[in-house]
Amino acid sequence: MPAPSLPVLHNLATQLRIDSIRSTSEAGSGHPTTCLSAADIVAALFFAEMRFDPADPRHPDADRFVLSKGHGAPLLYAVWAALGAFPRSELLTLRTLGSDLEGHPTPRLPFVDVATGSLGQGLAAGIGMALNARRTASPSRTYVLMGDGESAEGSVWEGAEAGAFHRLDNLCGITDVNGLGQSRATQWDHDLQAYVSRWTAFGWHAIAIDGHDLAAILRALAEARATTGQPTMIVAGTLKGKGVKLFEGKPGWHGKALKKGPEMDGAIAELEAQYVKTSDPAPVIPKPARRRDEGPLPDFVKVYPAPAYKAGDLVATREAYGTALAALGAIDGRVVALDADVGNSTFSDRFEAKHADRFYQAFIAEQVMIGAAMGLASHGALPFPSTFACFLNRASDFIRMAGVSHLNIKLAGSHAGVSIGEDGPSQMALEDLAIMRAVPNCTVFYPCDAVSTERLMAVAANTPGPAYLRLSRPKTPILYPADATFRAGGSMTLRQGPRDAVAVVAAGVTVFEALAAADRLAKEGVPIRVIDAYSVQPIDRDALVAAGAACGGRLITVEDHYAHGGLGDAVSGAVWDQGFRVKRLAVREIPRSGTPEQLLEKYGISANAIVEAVQSLVGAPALGAPR
Amino acid sequence: MPAPSLPVLHNLATQLRIDSIRSTSEAGSGHPTTCLSAADIVAALFFAEMRFDPADPRHPDADRFVLSKGHGAPLLYAVWAALGAFPRSELLTLRTLGSDLEGHPTPRLPFVDVATGSLGQGLAAGIGMALNARRTASPSRTYVLMGDGESAEGSVWEGAEAGAFHRLDNLCGITDVNGLGQSRATQWDHDLQAYVSRWTAFGWHAIAIDGHDLAAILRALAEARATTGQPTMIVAGTLKGKGVKLFEGKPGWHGKALKKGPEMDGAIAELEAQYVKTSDPAPVIPKPARRRDEGPLPDFVKVYPAPAYKAGDLVATREAYGTALAALGAIDGRVVALDADVGNSTFSDRFEAKHADRFYQAFIAEQVMIGAAMGLASHGALPFPSTFACFLNRASDFIRMAGVSHLNIKLAGSHAGVSIGEDGPSQMALEDLAIMRAVPNCTVFYPCDAVSTERLMAVAANTPGPAYLRLSRPKTPILYPADATFRAGGSMTLRQGPRDAVAVVAAGVTVFEALAAADRLAKEGVPIRVIDAYSVQPIDRDALVAAGAACGGRLITVEDHYAHGGLGDAVSGAVWDQGFRVKRLAVREIPRSGTPEQLLEKYGISANAIVEAVQSLVGAPALGAPR
Repeated sequence: MPAPSLPVLHNLATQLRIDSIRSTSEAGSGHPTTCLSAADIVAALFFAEMRFDPADPRHPDADRFVLSKGHGAPLLYAVWAALGAFPRSELLTLRTLGSDLEGHPTPRLPFVDVATGSLGQGLAAGIGMALNARRTASPSRTYVLMGDGESAEGSVWEGAEAGAFHRLDNLCGITDVNGLGQSRATQWDHDLQAYVSRWTAFGWHAIAIDGHDLAAILRALAEARATTGQPTMIVAGTLKGKGVKLFEGKPGWHGKALKKGPEMDGAIAELEAQYVKTSDPAPVIPKPARRRDEGPLPDFVKVYPAPAYKAGDLVATREAYGTALAALGAIDGRVVALDADVGNSTFSDRFEAKHADRFYQAFIAEQVMIGAAMGLASHGALPFPSTFACFLNRASDFIRMAGVSHLNIKLAGSHAGVSIGEDGPSQMALEDLAIMRAVPNCTVFYPCDAVSTERLMAVAANTPGPAYLRLSRPKTPILYPADATFRAGGSMTLRQGPRDAVAVVAAGVTVFEALAAADRLAKEGVPIRVIDAYSVQPIDRDALVAAGAACGGRLITVEDHYAHGGLGDAVSGAVWDQGFRVKRLAVREIPRSGTPEQLLEKYGISANAIVEAVQSLVGAPALGAPR
Repeated sequence: MPAPSLPVLHNLATQLRIDSIRSTSEAGSGHPTTCLSAADIVAALFFAEMRFDPADPRHPDADRFVLSKGHGAPLLYAVWAALGAFPRSELLTLRTLGSDLEGHPTPRLPFVDVATGSLGQGLAAGIGMALNARRTASPSRTYVLMGDGESAEGSVWEGAEAGAFHRLDNLCGITDVNGLGQSRATQWDHDLQAYVSRWTAFGWHAIAIDGHDLAAILRALAEARATTGQPTMIVAGTLKGKGVKLFEGKPGWHGKALKKGPEMDGAIAELEAQYVKTSDPAPVIPKPARRRDEGPLPDFVKVYPAPAYKAGDLVATREAYGTALAALGAIDGRVVALDADVGNSTFSDRFEAKHADRFYQAFIAEQVMIGAAMGLASHGALPFPSTFACFLNRASDFIRMAGVSHLNIKLAGSHAGVSIGEDGPSQMALEDLAIMRAVPNCTVFYPCDAVSTERLMAVAANTPGPAYLRLSRPKTPILYPADATFRAGGSMTLRQGPRDAVAVVAAGVTVFEALAAADRLAKEGVPIRVIDAYSVQPIDRDALVAAGAACGGRLITVEDHYAHGGLGDAVSGAVWDQGFRVKRLAVREIPRSGTPEQLLEKYGISANAIVEAVQSLVGAPALGAPR
């Protein structure tokens, strides 16, 4: 196939510029200058470098493009319109309600794999895609277009380390060095060498070019393709707003659309004058050399082997996680695992031991771990990233964007709550339920024993979209028989009687505190209901409403988590219309070091605390809607 | 003052090693090997390099030490015991309940400025301390001891850029390259040059040394002190577990204490044999060259000038934020501001225009912005870091640790909610209230108009500990007179009558939706109460209970936030014992682009949605505890 001629590419880039101006002016907002700096790079990539099928943007072996500088969305939309994915006239629906041409790209569009717009995330996603291509032995290459401003994000340098560590020569970054951030010049302005030095020091092949010189762009892309054993970063010097004198290279124009009328018309006329005459043929996009689909995922719940524990065994849920992860990996080769150098604490090392080629060590870099999981998930892998639950916090903006992208990633956070004991507050996740519940499409499980952990791992694997498993450090007794079944939105009622005074809703380690409290209260003649709310999101409203109605509207929640955003709020939100009392036992201050037992006691989530709370509620009048 | 002799330093390092072994063995947990790799560095710093007063660890002009590798806490405690801060015998209380010698350092101890233990945060805090020394023209130097494993954290490289950008030659990092992470060798093992190349590329002066060679350590520290115009990173090659053959340089020993008895005794005997005979004098710690206290902060609420708006003005709360920030800066020189390259959107540029020397540009690097704010706050500055609320998410683990440290930082997040409109979900903060409420000691304000924003800024400045202001993009009408007063834990009842059918609790942009709904409902003969819950944490329980009791237990919350962890949960948690209904109107799915008005409507938080919700509740029977 002949390479497209430079005049043809130049005219295509000009068209992309014009369309970016026109759509943002019509919308009355957006970032045209950001589009114009990158138009030549994007034209070269899509019309002369990448192998893909414009009619089939989800082709599993197509080269991938990630617009890490997501505010350049109009440029991305313009190139796909030029490729025929939709009529160019539709570009004028940019940013309007109902149009999938949103302000920043999301996977509502078939040619977007991961949502971008939170800067500094695209490279991590690209690493995941490149790892996935390696997993599937695909010829697919991944291109990530980054802004210079976002290079200040630490996540970019986590990606730099990871790309070099994994020797991802199927990965090529392009940094669009237009020198201007939003409010001022970037730290390095047009000092291309500042970027080259950094990327080179991080083990990348780095090439500095003029990002408006199409021949130079093509040469650099060819050099990247020929580079083996390391990824390439093309550092492209550009002008923000290139091609329109009004704002070319000028500060103060970030995120400003040109006004419709003379301002826009003048800019478009100026760009139109830049078209060059040519009779060279239009470019032909080369299709990928192969096409291999992986097919649907299996029914993990159906084929998952029965957990092998016996009553009385003491097993931490984090350990059951490792066992289940290895088992899921044996069921399907698309199950992959990532960990941030704590695999011997999360027990993800059991997966590593069995499936080393599908285990990705992220070292202590949680953002690139989650970002890579996003990239892997966007192309058919089923990634399970794990670390201490509190350190998932480090990647909470990536988790937010995984939610926006509705990606199929399954996060596991171990060492939740004060029950970790002596390590102290910096290692205790006490806000993870709040963070994960705030992702609207995220399934949140918090199992209390090894059987439910294993079973819920299979449920999580079967449930599309993001999921979170909250895991505990201490060993806990086996509570459930191996054939017990669990479901998203389910719960288990562990104690129940006709005269229950109060319903106690627990999850994880507090289930055992609630059971101990129930035993003591039963001896005192105060029977209580105990519910294991292992599915925190969605939560089992029916069971909670029934329990509240049976117990005079007296509910107590008890959780190894701060009082806000966790189990108590979940229960309370579910039964909002019932007029129940929902008393929350939860950690209400910054905790200290101590033994797990001491800390459960001190922070008011022990069996003793539950007994006291029950006693304080028993005397209260029954509440709730008349039935 | 004579420099201490190397034999004396060596013996002190040996004592630190012994104490680290002994305390962790007594605790039965902890990270002795991490302490042993850094003992020589710490001995050199504390006994031969730093100027401070062991009797006054909070001395404002003392050199600062940040233990970024917080799991080395026993070493830090050992050195302060050696300095006489407390009896050495107290080291044996390590990790026990009630002891301030927690598993990882927290500022419960006077010699700890910021809590560490979440890796990769110490350098950012050190940057804040170095900036603060510059602000106060203090001779204080800042030393940050980092682990090699944590160098994988992107936040470290945000710090690298920031340190070089601000030319912080009063800052010296030391990377303890012991080559071993938790689960395996680090990415670069003992390749010191890999670290030197990276730091040099990022603009630092970098020095590679043998981290067990005391003379080399002292020479490197002196070289750092003599270096001007850039910070220094000392890359120190060490052995994890140095000095104890059982685990020296061996993997598999991370986070493992030696067993009391022969295992511990053998290690201690081995170390004791390493003491050398010397009659050289004990080191004398040089005191800081000056001591300048800044005194207490003023009463900002008292002196804050009356906001200058008139009824009918339309002003975005983010704009009022910028006005207030500049005004607070004029009141006291300790008020400082930081922004992540969006100062022209958050309006922090109004502060920059007036107080350029106290404005720190963080570029697009939210982690170092919050970390630097933590360091500044730990030494008397009153920092206001701001960016889009959704991008504060990027730093949520830093915010968590600011809570653990109870630092006096005031975060501002603009562009909250779907009311930003066209930019789409990646730019919309819809989980920020959940994240901030989950910090137990964090004050959370969500003002609806410019007057309350300005007044609450002064309240935030007066309130110790972390605070968060949630700010909106759209212009909103001035609602309050200039002399209205606001308080943490307060609210404003905006509509109230004897026959109110329902109480609607709103905050921020939804206050105006609630008022519009009230006007329409009043015409239909359905009066409602409207409450502006501007203080989301603490929340005004008294007003909510009174409103619920007056309205038949019918409460509706309406918020431009996801349904979980925000205003609805806050209200529901506050009135848990009342048996009220709390119906939540909130965003329940990943939103799209559109106009602000369209999005409020589509996601069910508009005046129309409130009217409908009120109508659906009016027919319901009154609920609530008998009065």
